[in-house]
Amino acid sequence: METISEQRCFDGVQGRYTHASGQTGTTMQVSVYLPPQAGSGKVPALYYLAGLTCSDETFMIKAGAQRLAAELGLALVTCDTSPRGIELPGDRAHWDFGVGAGFYLDATQAPWSAHYRMGSYVNLELPALIEAHFPIASERRGIFGHSMGGHGALVTALRHPARWHSVSAFAPISNPCRVPWGEKAFTNYLGEDRTRWSDWDASELMAARAHPSPILVDQGEADAFLDRELQPQALETAARISGQSLRLRRHAGYDHSYWFIQTFVADHLRHHAAALNR
Amino acid sequence: METISEQRCFDGVQGRYTHASGQTGTTMQVSVYLPPQAGSGKVPALYYLAGLTCSDETFMIKAGAQRLAAELGLALVTCDTSPRGIELPGDRAHWDFGVGAGFYLDATQAPWSAHYRMGSYVNLELPALIEAHFPIASERRGIFGHSMGGHGALVTALRHPARWHSVSAFAPISNPCRVPWGEKAFTNYLGEDRTRWSDWDASELMAARAHPSPILVDQGEADAFLDRELQPQALETAARISGQSLRLRRHAGYDHSYWFIQTFVADHLRHHAAALNR
Repeated sequence: METISEQRCFDGVQGRYTHASGQTGTTMQVSVYLPPQAGSGKVPALYYLAGLTCSDETFMIKAGAQRLAAELGLALVTCDTSPRGIELPGDRAHWDFGVGAGFYLDATQAPWSAHYRMGSYVNLELPALIEAHFPIASERRGIFGHSMGGHGALVTALRHPARWHSVSAFAPISNPCRVPWGEKAFTNYLGEDRTRWSDWDASELMAARAHPSPILVDQGEADAFLDRELQPQALETAARISGQSLRLRRHAGYDHSYWFIQTFVADHLRHHAAALNR
Repeated sequence: METISEQRCFDGVQGRYTHASGQTGTTMQVSVYLPPQAGSGKVPALYYLAGLTCSDETFMIKAGAQRLAAELGLALVTCDTSPRGIELPGDRAHWDFGVGAGFYLDATQAPWSAHYRMGSYVNLELPALIEAHFPIASERRGIFGHSMGGHGALVTALRHPARWHSVSAFAPISNPCRVPWGEKAFTNYLGEDRTRWSDWDASELMAARAHPSPILVDQGEADAFLDRELQPQALETAARISGQSLRLRRHAGYDHSYWFIQTFVADHLRHHAAALNR
């Protein structure tokens, strides 16, 4: 890992780094916030996956999470939303597909399958790299995210519950198999056969098997994408089927922005700290 | 004032607005955070002036101040760092002069004097506009800022102590008459006669007359601009001369960025709330 920058923040370190990725075959950028407690021992890490068009910097700059992360002794880790620096046909034609829209899955269809392996990148490669380079504990990991990244966080934790010990989401794409953003991405990345999509759909995964940790989801009722793309009620249905402990909170007046995330991020950090700081 | 956007944040409203300015002769953009208490009565406002190259959005996005503003019942108001949308000779040639670098003064030299009137804009026009359009009290105003905006906040409050009841700064350009950034700006905006510069220099103003309110200044010791441009020791000298109550804190390891501001912004909000929430 090469260091782009390291700056002091709440007595910890806000850093940005670059590394070659074996999963994506590209150079990836990541941001890490190390709380002051990392100076005297290993700390748990909370991974955040951002939404469409965002980068590793978005959450770090806009969410205001470092204050409480420093207090709770949690590291924060963010990555990019897709591979970058390659040129695949049409990967920049739409803001909701290709560059900035990797959907945190492992593509099976050419040409995407060669690079769009964000699922394994987030689940395996990134934690291994982070835990090798920073004083971060490997036995307690949390994951959360927003919108496409909320989908990514839920899917990652539900697919690999032994690796991810706490999970939450802001306004996730809850049932991508059945909404336009998901249908577009999955058709291109995973192919026309819809039976193979369920492995990357939070509601389908949750209905099949509950995650052992309670799940927190926040959703703004003034979110312009709520009915068409997000559909959190699908998570409630799935949770009833599998017995998943799910706390889905709907907030009047809040939209899809980082003003919404900023407002509720402290509740998410406390949710994860309760599971990770043992 | 025309509304660009209004979004819910910490049960208050994060808004962005545009208006025609009589002082600058341009269209100006401003951002306002109204805390939830503004729904049931007038609240005090804390004005923030940003540094070189920034806009009204920078602080609102990067400082993480809304959480505590909502708790304390303080409105936050931010404006741009210069007029925009005009073309004056060389106004885009340098990042530290012209567009994005208005220095919060009233220029006396052509061609700048026709538009670069950020001093009167901040002191008079903006508060009048804000207090006419929002539930904001006119009798208690606070002002703070960063770097060029720290200079602006100190100068505005020291020149008009009856209008500004609390003041603080992050890494201000403390003695612009004697540093490269200030010399370049003042020569162009105010002319070659240095005797006319003192009216816009925080250290000169402070030495001549103390502000009735205690002043808080935070400075990072790893700030790359500290020795060449900021020179906070000039404020300490001035405070001794006039008897100004000044708390200047130096923080090891912190640089000039918003990671530094984010770390200490809560102390500034509490400093202002103590004076304004009476």
